[in-house]
Order: sequence, then C-alpha cells, then structure tokens
Amino acid sequence: MAEEVKNAQPLVGIIMGSQSDLKVMDAAAEILETLGVPYELTIVSAHRTPHRMFEYAENARKRGLKVIIAGAGGAAHLPGMVASITTLPVIGVPVKSSNSIDGWDSVLSILQMPGGIPVATVALDGALNAGILAAEIVGAFNPAVADKLEKYKISLKDKVMRSVEELKRGDRDLD
Amino acid sequence: MAEEVKNAQPLVGIIMGSQSDLKVMDAAAEILETLGVPYELTIVSAHRTPHRMFEYAENARKRGLKVIIAGAGGAAHLPGMVASITTLPVIGVPVKSSNSIDGWDSVLSILQMPGGIPVATVALDGALNAGILAAEIVGAFNPAVADKLEKYKISLKDKVMRSVEELKRGDRDLD
Amino acid sequence: MAEEVKNAQPLVGIIMGSQSDLKVMDAAAEILETLGVPYELTIVSAHRTPHRMFEYAENARKRGLKVIIAGAGGAAHLPGMVASITTLPVIGVPVKSSNSIDGWDSVLSILQMPGGIPVATVALDGALNAGILAAEIVGAFNPAVADKLEKYKISLKDKVMRSVEELKRGDRDLD
Amino acid sequence: MAEEVKNAQPLVGIIMGSQSDLKVMDAAAEILETLGVPYELTIVSAHRTPHRMFEYAENARKRGLKVIIAGAGGAAHLPGMVASITTLPVIGVPVKSSNSIDGWDSVLSILQMPGGIPVATVALDGALNAGILAAEIVGAFNPAVADKLEKYKISLKDKVMRSVEELKRGDRDLD
Amino acid sequence: MAEEVKNAQPLVGIIMGSQSDLKVMDAAAEILETLGVPYELTIVSAHRTPHRMFEYAENARKRGLKVIIAGAGGAAHLPGMVASITTLPVIGVPVKSSNSIDGWDSVLSILQMPGGIPVATVALDGALNAGILAAEIVGAFNPAVADKLEKYKISLKDKVMRSVEELKRGDRDLD
Amino acid sequence: MAEEVKNAQPLVGIIMGSQSDLKVMDAAAEILETLGVPYELTIVSAHRTPHRMFEYAENARKRGLKVIIAGAGGAAHLPGMVASITTLPVIGVPVKSSNSIDGWDSVLSILQMPGGIPVATVALDGALNAGILAAEIVGAFNPAVADKLEKYKISLKDKVMRSVEELKRGDRDLD
Amino acid sequence: MAEEVKNAQPLVGIIMGSQSDLKVMDAAAEILETLGVPYELTIVSAHRTPHRMFEYAENARKRGLKVIIAGAGGAAHLPGMVASITTLPVIGVPVKSSNSIDGWDSVLSILQMPGGIPVATVALDGALNAGILAAEIVGAFNPAVADKLEKYKISLKDKVMRSVEELKRGDRDLD
Amino acid sequence: MAEEVKNAQPLVGIIMGSQSDLKVMDAAAEILETLGVPYELTIVSAHRTPHRMFEYAENARKRGLKVIIAGAGGAAHLPGMVASITTLPVIGVPVKSSNSIDGWDSVLSILQMPGGIPVATVALDGALNAGILAAEIVGAFNPAVADKLEKYKISLKDKVMRSVEELKRGDRDLD
Repeated sequence: MAEEVKNAQPLVGIIMGSQSDLKVMDAAAEILETLGVPYELTIVSAHRTPHRMFEYAENARKRGLKVIIAGAGGAAHLPGMVASITTLPVIGVPVKSSNSIDGWDSVLSILQMPGGIPVATVALDGALNAGILAAEIVGAFNPAVADKLEKYKISLKDKVMRSVEELKRGDRDLD
Repeated sequence: MAEEVKNAQPLVGIIMGSQSDLKVMDAAAEILETLGVPYELTIVSAHRTPHRMFEYAENARKRGLKVIIAGAGGAAHLPGMVASITTLPVIGVPVKSSNSIDGWDSVLSILQMPGGIPVATVALDGALNAGILAAEIVGAFNPAVADKLEKYKISLKDKVMRSVEELKRGDRDLD
Repeated sequence: MAEEVKNAQPLVGIIMGSQSDLKVMDAAAEILETLGVPYELTIVSAHRTPHRMFEYAENARKRGLKVIIAGAGGAAHLPGMVASITTLPVIGVPVKSSNSIDGWDSVLSILQMPGGIPVATVALDGALNAGILAAEIVGAFNPAVADKLEKYKISLKDKVMRSVEELKRGDRDLD
Repeated sequence: MAEEVKNAQPLVGIIMGSQSDLKVMDAAAEILETLGVPYELTIVSAHRTPHRMFEYAENARKRGLKVIIAGAGGAAHLPGMVASITTLPVIGVPVKSSNSIDGWDSVLSILQMPGGIPVATVALDGALNAGILAAEIVGAFNPAVADKLEKYKISLKDKVMRSVEELKRGDRDLD
Repeated sequence: MAEEVKNAQPLVGIIMGSQSDLKVMDAAAEILETLGVPYELTIVSAHRTPHRMFEYAENARKRGLKVIIAGAGGAAHLPGMVASITTLPVIGVPVKSSNSIDGWDSVLSILQMPGGIPVATVALDGALNAGILAAEIVGAFNPAVADKLEKYKISLKDKVMRSVEELKRGDRDLD
Repeated sequence: MAEEVKNAQPLVGIIMGSQSDLKVMDAAAEILETLGVPYELTIVSAHRTPHRMFEYAENARKRGLKVIIAGAGGAAHLPGMVASITTLPVIGVPVKSSNSIDGWDSVLSILQMPGGIPVATVALDGALNAGILAAEIVGAFNPAVADKLEKYKISLKDKVMRSVEELKRGDRDLD
Repeated sequence: MAEEVKNAQPLVGIIMGSQSDLKVMDAAAEILETLGVPYELTIVSAHRTPHRMFEYAENARKRGLKVIIAGAGGAAHLPGMVASITTLPVIGVPVKSSNSIDGWDSVLSILQMPGGIPVATVALDGALNAGILAAEIVGAFNPAVADKLEKYKISLKDKVMRSVEELKRGDRDLD
Repeated sequence: MAEEVKNAQPLVGIIMGSQSDLKVMDAAAEILETLGVPYELTIVSAHRTPHRMFEYAENARKRGLKVIIAGAGGAAHLPGMVASITTLPVIGVPVKSSNSIDGWDSVLSILQMPGGIPVATVALDGALNAGILAAEIVGAFNPAVADKLEKYKISLKDKVMRSVEELKRGDRDLD
C-alpha cells in the first residue's frame, strides 16, 4: 500500500467469514489500493464469532468507516447481519466456497434481503467489483477518487482497444 | 392448549421473523399441543431485532428450552444465527414468503450452513414437520411423548386406509 | 414530497426501463422522500431509447446526482449499461416483469456484471431496499440523512416489538 | 474411539446407502467421537436391501438409539423411508454422489418430505453438521454432552481469532 | 369400464401416495380403459403405510400384474421403493402436489434412481402418458392392444388435421 | 455375448444420437447381455439422419423389436421423435454430453413429452437402468428373463451385505 | 392482412405444435402484417404429425419460404426437427404451455441444439420478437422491409418518450 | 480464408466482449469460411467500450453487413444492446465464461429480450451454430450459399453413416 494510503483513516472495511475466503476477497483490497481509498481487512464470522460481528458492525460508523464489504459463501449471513446492525452501506460478495451448491446458496442468501435491510450484492466471487463499488460510493463525494475511477474506466477501454489492434495485426486478422 | 401443557415449562421455543409467517408457523404450535409438548411462540427478527435475537438464543437453554423452531423466508438468517449462539438443536422452517424466489432462497439460506453450525431443515413451509421433529427430539428421552408420536403415526396410516376403503366402496372403485 | 426536498438538487436518479415498472419502483421514491433525500424519477429504456440512456448516464455526475437507481426486468441491461458509462454508484433493481422467467433472468442479467463494472444489486422487486441503500450511500457523508436512517431502523424494530406485544395480549398468546 | 465411548450403548445410528458414501459420512462418526457420544455405523440401502432397512428402522428405538443419521445421494430415499417407520428423530445428509445432478436431487428428495414424516436435513455433504446436530439432540438432555458442545463452539471461535491474529501479524496485515 | 375389461385380470396396478393425487392419476385409468387394458387402482403411501407398500410390491407379480404405475409428489419415494422390491416395470408419475417446489422435487426424487433400480419416469403430472406407456408395454406382446395403440396414434393425428382445416376455413385462415 | 443370445432375434434396439454417446450407452448393452435379452445397437441421429430415424422407428415393431432404448444429450429429440412414430415402449436416456448445461437440457427435453407420446425416462446417464428396465418389460411376459432379474436383484443385495461385513471386520468397524 | 400482402408469395412460414399455442403465436403473424412481410400460418405437430412435419420442412424452400417460425412447449421438438431437415433459417419460440415446468423445458429443448443444426431461439412466449426477427432477416436483403423496421424502432422510442412526458406532466412528476 | 472470400465485402460481423471469448467464437469464423460467406471479426465490449459498440451497431448496415454475431458471457449485454441499435438480425452466442454461473446468466441475459428487440440466441458456447445460422440467413437469398449449406448437411449425415459402418464392422458390432 502506498504510504499515504497506509496511514490514512480507513474508509472501507473488508471482512469475510473465513480465512479461505481471502483468495477471493483480496481483489477488493488490491483495487482499493489502486484507487487510493484507505481500507482495513479482517476476518469476522457471523456463525463462529457472532459477538465480534455485532461489535464490528456497531462500531463501524463511529470508527470512521464509510462502507463495509462483506464476503461469505453457502448460507452466507455475514453481509445481511452486518447490514441489520449498521446504517452504513454494506456490499455483499457471494463467495463460491467449497461447500456451496454452485454458488446459488451464496448468491440468494446475500441478495434476497427483506424490505428495510439492503445489501448491495455483486456477482459471484465479484470482490473486484465490490472494491470498485466502494470506491464509487466514496468517489460520489470525493473528486480525487472520482478522478481515479475515471482513469480506471479509460484503462479498461484501452485494454480492449489494444486487443482489437493485436487481432488486426496478427494472424488472427480474419477479414 | 390443554391445562397441564399450558402451565408446564415450555420445552420448545417457536420463533419467526415476522408476523406474516404466523399463518405458516401455527402448524408447529398446533401439532405440539396435540402431542402434549409444552411450547412458547413469539416473533424474533434477525434483521430488525438483532439484539432480541441474541438474547433469545443466549438464554434459551437456561430458560429450560430443549429445542428451538425458527421460521423465516427470503434471505432467511434467523435459524442459522440462533444456531450460531446456542448449542440447543435448532429446526429451521423455510417460509415461502411473498418476497421469496419460489422458496429457493428460503431453503438454501437455511439449509446450507457451514461446518460446525447445523440447522435441522424441514421442507418449504414445513412447520407441521418442524413440530413433529421437535416432539421426536423430546420423545427420544420422554416415553410419554414417544407414545403419542406412535399413536400419531398410526393415525396417519388409518387415514390412508380409510381413503382406500372409500375408493373401494364408492363409484371410484375401478377394479 | 416535502417542500424543501422538492426544490433541492436531486441526489438520486431513479430510472426504469418501462412505465410498467413504476408500480414496483415507486417504493424507492417513497422511502427517499421519507428519509429526506432529494431525487428525480423518469423512464429510460436501454433497448428502446439507447441514446437517451447514454446521455442520462454521461450527464448524471455533472448534473449533481450521487447515486443512480435503475430497475429493469427480463434480459435487464439498463443498470449494467448505465454503470458502463458513469462512475457513480449504480443500484440495480431486478423487476419480476411479466415476460420474466420467475425473475431469474432479471436477477442474473443485473447481478453477474463482469470485472470492472459493478452494479449494486438488491433483491427481486427490492425497490424499497434500493431507496434505503441510496440513502445509506448519501448518509455515509451526510449526518442528517444518517440520523434519519437510524430512526428508520428503530421504527423497524418498534414494529416487530408491537407485534410481539399483540401476540402476547391476544388470543394468539400461546405460552 | 475412547474406551468408555467404545463400550457404551450406541445412542446414534449412522447409516448410508452405499460404501461409497463412507468418505462423506465418516465426518459424522469423527465428531461424535470428539463429543463423546457413542454411535454405531453401518450400510443400509433403501433400494438394494429394503428389508434390512425396515428391520433397522423398526428396531432402532428398542435397541436404545436416540437419533438416526442417514446419508444418501441422487433419488435419496433412505432418510425418508427410515423416518416413515421409526418415531426417533432422523437426520438426513444429502450426498453429492457421482450420479447426482449437482446435488439438487439429493437435497430435494430428502428435504421435501410430506406432512407427518419429518427428516432433519443438513447441508449437501454436511455429515459433520449431522454429527453435531445428533450431539445437540443428546445434549439437550445430557449436561456432559452439552458441555462438550459448548467447548466445541468456543474452539470454532478460537480458530477464527487465531486467523485474525495471523492476518494482523503477517504481511497480510493490510490496515 | 367395459364389462369384459372390468372382469378381466388386472394387468396394470395404478397406485398413488394420497387421495389428493387422484385428480391427476385418473387420466392413467381412463386411457387404459380406452385402450382395453384391465387395471386396478388404489392408494398406497410409502411414508404413511410402508408395510402396505411392501406387501403390494412383493405380491404384484404373483397377482398377475405386468406393470405398476406409481404417482407421488414432493420427496416422492413410492415409485422408487416399489421398484426396489419388485422386478416388474414401474412407471413413476411425478405429481406437482401442493407441497412441491414447482414440481422439481417430485421429478428428481423419482427420476434419479441409482444404478440397478430403474423407474420409468414420465412428465410432471403425466398420468395420461403413464397409462399409454403401460399399454405399450402390454402391447409389445399383445397384438390387440398394439392395434388399439395404433388407432389412438391415428386419432391424435386426426385431431391435429381437423384443427389445420378449421384454421384454413375460419377467419383464422391467414395465408 | 453368449452364443444363443447372439444369434437370437433382437428384442431390444439400443440407439443413440452420436458415437460419443457410446461410452455411456454401452452399459445398457452389457446388462442386457448379462440378463440374456438379445439386442442390437446402432447410431441414429434425429438431427443429422432424420430419414434414417424415421425408417428405424417405423420398422422396429415389424422387425421383431419389443422395446427401444434411445440415448441423446442437449436438446435431445431422438427418444421423443422415435416415440412419435412407433407404438413400442421407448426408453429415453438423457446423456450429459459435452454441450449440455449440466444435463438439465438432456433431462427436460426427453422427460417432458406432451400428452399422447410417452417416453420412459431414466436418470441422467442412466443407461444401466435403461437396460434393466427393458429387461423388466420383456420379463413381464418371459419367466426366464424375470428369473434372471430376480437373481440380479439378489446380487445387488449380496453386494451391500458384503460391504456390511467388511465394515464390521475391518478397522472401519466403528461400533 | 392488407390486400397486397395477402396475395403475395409467403416469405415466412409460421407453424406451431398445437392449436393451443395460437394465442401466443398470433403475435408473430400480427407484426409480420404490420411490417409488410407476407406469411402463412398453420399447425404442424412434430409428435402427432411427424410425416406432415417432414413434408413441410422438406418443401419449405422450394415453396418460396425464406424463414420458418416454429413454436412449441414442454419437450419442444418441432423447431429443432424442422431445422434438421431444411437449410432455411428456423426461429424457435419456446411456449410456456400448460404442461411445461415454468418454461424451462420449452427453452432448453429448443435452445440447446447440437453443433450443425442451429435454431434461432427467442424469449419464452416471444412470438412478437420471432416475427420481428423474421422481418429483419428479410429486411437484410429487402430495403422496403428494412425501412419499415426502422420506423417500427422509432415507434418504440416514441412510445417511451410519451410515457416520459406523461410522467413529467402528471401527478407522477416527482422531480 | 480462400482468396475470393478474403477480398469480398464482409456480410457477417462477428464481435465478442473480450479476447478470452475468441477460443469459443472462432468456430463461427471457421464455418463461415467453409461455407464461403465473407465475414469480419473484432472485439467490441458493451461494458468497457460502450461508444465503440454504438458506432459498430449504427454503421453495420451501411457498411454492407447483413447479419451480426455477438458473443458474450455472464451478464451478457452485447447482443441485446447491438440489437437495440441496428435493425439487422443479431445472433447471440451465450459464452460460458469463467465468471458465469454455469452459463445460466449468459443464456438468460441474451435470450430473454423484451418485446420489440429480438436476439436470435443459439446454444451455450454455440458459435458453430451461430455461423451456420448466419449462413442460412444469407443462403435464404443466395443460392450458392444455400447449395453449400445443403452439402454441409449431407456431410453431417455422411459422418453419422460412417460411424454406423465402423460400429458394424468392428468388435463394437453387437448385433
């Protein structure tokens, strides 16, 4: 992490149900670093550390967080339970964990929250998009982050255009 | 409720996420009454009353409960969250609530609990079976309840045999 | 809409693919009004007015919007296409429209966005939660809105507690 | 198995449809051993040994069993058929066997029992949770087992807290 | 039923799990009557009358039956359990009963039988086809029934051709 | 194939849509050989050789076949189209071919035949059961085949009982 | 139908499996009339009139048709079987018929055609789009039809813009 | 590509959302080459290059294209968005990309287009069929291409007949 981001007040809290989710959830941390949004990352299990989860969610706003990203798989209750306690926006990442039925349980138990308690759900294993969404939320009120997001969007386009050029030049140029 | 059951120490706690679940969950209460198992029934919402849920789950065993039946729909977190706090057996009833995607979210977010935190899941809207299962758990250690369960099983068979007879007698006798 | 909210700069743009989505999407408008977050609401179809959609998405940030809520059903491309153009957070509401296969198409074509282009997806027909989520995003940076969200959360709890009391008092008091 | 558990009257009967289910179902046996609950384990096939299944289910209670755990895959009839014969609580483990359609057949043919005949269904391949649930049923009436379950729950929490610490110490400490 | 069919030895046994399945299963009886195949019809529940089911399946062949048609819904075990006991061909009719999840449980718990124990599964609520299939099995060895099947096939074609003609004549003639 | 079976008039015709289905469909041939039922096996594609399919189906009965087993995957039309032409019983084997969506297309496009045209569907990749079902159909009218089926059923039971014994003897004896 | 269209050589053949599909399939006929593309409409059942289907498909090109639209439900074989015989483009309309499992069988048995035999599948009950697609195919080579399609596209946009205006003017004007 | 095809005006435009789709989409290019239909192939991303997509779709007809083939995976918006802009026939290829939920999202977000904007959807990863369908559209108005399609159909049949012969000759000759 760049020095200024490292020492800054974290704005995004990334939590996940188990250490095994880290290989998916790391993508959220990496993109937030790229976009210059300070964050923290830890493990909070709704089912194995319910009190820790309560405390994390209850203190998140007063600790200065603006967004929480929560990843979990199977009967994934972490994002929804955190959202039931805090009024910060909570982004849920359905993880296709080893015990999941092809990811459907992860998706549905995060997405289908009852009226009153939203979770902003992203695609299955979509931690990268969770990080970008958190940055977009910060960037709605912070022009510097908005600017980095704009540049990131251009980089996505540039990457496509480079593959267009390669296709034209190479023996894959089929026209 | 018969007088002796009414005043007895409740052995089964029936909880549900919302008053609208009552029309499904009542079947659990009715069969427990039939089988002579004292119970209590109330509303506990994981998402709208998380602290109440914590207290209910934490005190259940010391209050003398032996089994908890929890019904919820959509992203149904009540049964799993209660199971994360208590070591009593928790029976989950997936409710096909109005916001559910044909019940699949209710089923998967109750059934697919991670290793370490079981929920005994019954069929979609299966509150009747949740009540019988709770009675079977009590009846494993209580011969009087076991006896009532045996009689209930015979009544199920008798009802089938009566419809066999009706079919034979009536103009539906097709053999 | 209360006068001060009505004349204020809209912070949330609510759009939907068709007039028939209005009966679902109105819930987003209503809750934003309750929570004191100024908004605008119109119809933008990705498939029938693609140029209008482009313009809406390209101008949203400079017009002062902070969040876009987009509802659509079936092969629902509106939320994702808007997200491909703006860097504002986009909340997608999968609508169970008449041509949808039980809502699965609406959910999957909004949720499963590729890496780089997030859409914050809420439950099927979850416009109420989309409105709350938009308010949470504003409230992360606006204490007055955060305060209203806190009060809303308490009102959800109070409603549950009232039904607990009714159950105790009435002939539904089964303990 | 510890000596005292080995010679004790089995309280839990673990059965499965085929030897190939053993690699999944072993987890139930192991956790029961850990939790000090005596058990027995054997193979009973609803489809290939229907008479054996009948006898097993009919004699279970008089042989002193308190709970039956039954695992099966595909069109999985073993848990439900055993539940149709005994009044003991029956825990069903849907096994993702080689002939299963991603586990959906195993789950639905165990979970969706008709009114009157409950099966306490756990997650796909959730034999560990089946064992814990059986122990919870025994532990509802046996303080020593309840105590072991309490300790097991603490060990789950401790494992999470250790990974929290590792994350903080190591180069994965990202805050 | 025509007199000669009524007094004849039944060749097809139609059974179903509950009286409520009768409105679906009647179609099997009616077509067998049309095709001149003697049958019997009764209620046999795998879960509520397991002993009756055993006896029915064990005696079916010696009583002169050639085919068994079994209809059931939800976790539908009747067709598969009967097939586990008899070596007669068993036709399974998945019934979309009121407790079924859109019929998926009925279909999968009948269709996905393990190797060694086949059930000839027809479409959801496909009792008409179950009756025709039973007649085809009899007709493979009985020219009179084969002949009736041939005539039935022609009647299906004739019905289509009549609607072709109506379409041509009427104001629906759009060519 | 034993000599007498080899030279006998084939009673069962096994067909499949493509050579790649052979590795699945061979199981049908093998069990028919075991059960002493003469058969033939060839490739008939509904989509690539529609005329050949018509001829096969039209001539099947006069060539002496009693049952047709048809295997196909994806949008699997072979079993249903053959059934639309012949009045012989047609057994459909849904093949989980490389182009299939987890087998769901294969299952549904074989199982869900319209009223009037039944296909006896077996489990996904269930060619073994298709062979046994064909033998059961023959065996309903042929005592020698019925006898072999009875012996086969006993062999299934014996195999289970052997694994019961092994479990008891070996270090897997956990009671 | 306008006189000139009525007498013209039909370019599109609309067929369907049963008269009951007409209420869905009529939308294809209506839009073709609107777009000035001559068509014919009749009933052809793959399963009940297989020979008629063969003849229809074999003669379609020489009769002057350019496109075939085929609608069917359940195990829907008509579009794929017609495509196996002709080299004209075949558009398949999955119909959510009464015997369908929520339309999934209709969709998958039309969409998932094997390599070599394409069917251009449109949405469930999407006969309107089938008609437009047929017109687009004709319009790719016929400027007059292309022109009508362009006008139709503008009419779709105009309808959206009118509802935008209504929303602004009326009491639904929420900005 | 043969020289005359290479220099010809492309009639089919093959586009895809990302370079990673090329390994699936190449099959469309290859079969068009085989069938002598000139085409072009490039990368156009709805989400990362929305303006490029607009331009491609708007100019397609005037550049002389007759058909567009668009492949994409996950929340696949490319085919539908292109169809919303052009009046050329658009063929959609659902790609089972790495971020897809078993292909269901790809299929549904392409297939389930709203009334007015058709996409001709082929099977999951069905690029070969997309190419053939494009050729069929061209061939409906171009006898030379129709002729090549007829020969291709014969080659499919011949390949089946060769495997029939091999099966007869070899030790797989089981009749």
